[in-house]
Amino acid sequence: MIVKNIKDVESVEINMEGAKDVIKKVPVGIKDGTPTMSFRVFQIKPGGCTPFHSHPQEHVNIILEGEGILVNEKGEGRTLKVGDFALVLPNEKHQYKNNSGETFTMVCAVRKEYE
Amino acid sequence: MIVKNIKDVESVEINMEGAKDVIKKVPVGIKDGTPTMSFRVFQIKPGGCTPFHSHPQEHVNIILEGEGILVNEKGEGRTLKVGDFALVLPNEKHQYKNNSGETFTMVCAVRKEYE
Repeated sequence: MIVKNIKDVESVEINMEGAKDVIKKVPVGIKDGTPTMSFRVFQIKPGGCTPFHSHPQEHVNIILEGEGILVNEKGEGRTLKVGDFALVLPNEKHQYKNNSGETFTMVCAVRKEYE
Repeated sequence: MIVKNIKDVESVEINMEGAKDVIKKVPVGIKDGTPTMSFRVFQIKPGGCTPFHSHPQEHVNIILEGEGILVNEKGEGRTLKVGDFALVLPNEKHQYKNNSGETFTMVCAVRKEYE
């Protein structure tokens, strides 16, 4: 078994097209020998966002800090706050945005192939 | 996509042999149409614990509230606190305990077959 605190996990800036002010950490992933699931943590700074895109794998989100917006394929936004869980299904177009004044932090779990 | 707050998810008391004062919620699971991963939330009251057992699937934990102990197959305990992530590998014997004075709340993600 492995135990890690998120504060001790290396940060990487996301440079994908459409991403702005997003930091990624992988507290549980392929390097840890995870059998099937990878757990990424994204920190989106105020004004930042992820790409508006889709992919053939699902996302499961757990909100850890702050407030963000999950945009659906119609472009409609829904607020995400601490205590919320979200399931984005395979091939659903989606985007995460931070229109608040504080950092928005969430877990984004995926199958390890999409880590 | 589905968004739910943990406060709105039904609680079930765990009656497995070896479990004491443990509540389970499933914010993302089979009923939600999850493709591969189920997200359970366990709340262990002060003095409570899960069974000391093993199973052929992994657990991934995210600590949301309070402080608990993750016991390994040798019976050694490791403290879990907010911000910690844990990976328990398939067939590793383990137990979660709460020796603190406050409720201990964690996510325990599994492949949906083990929900």
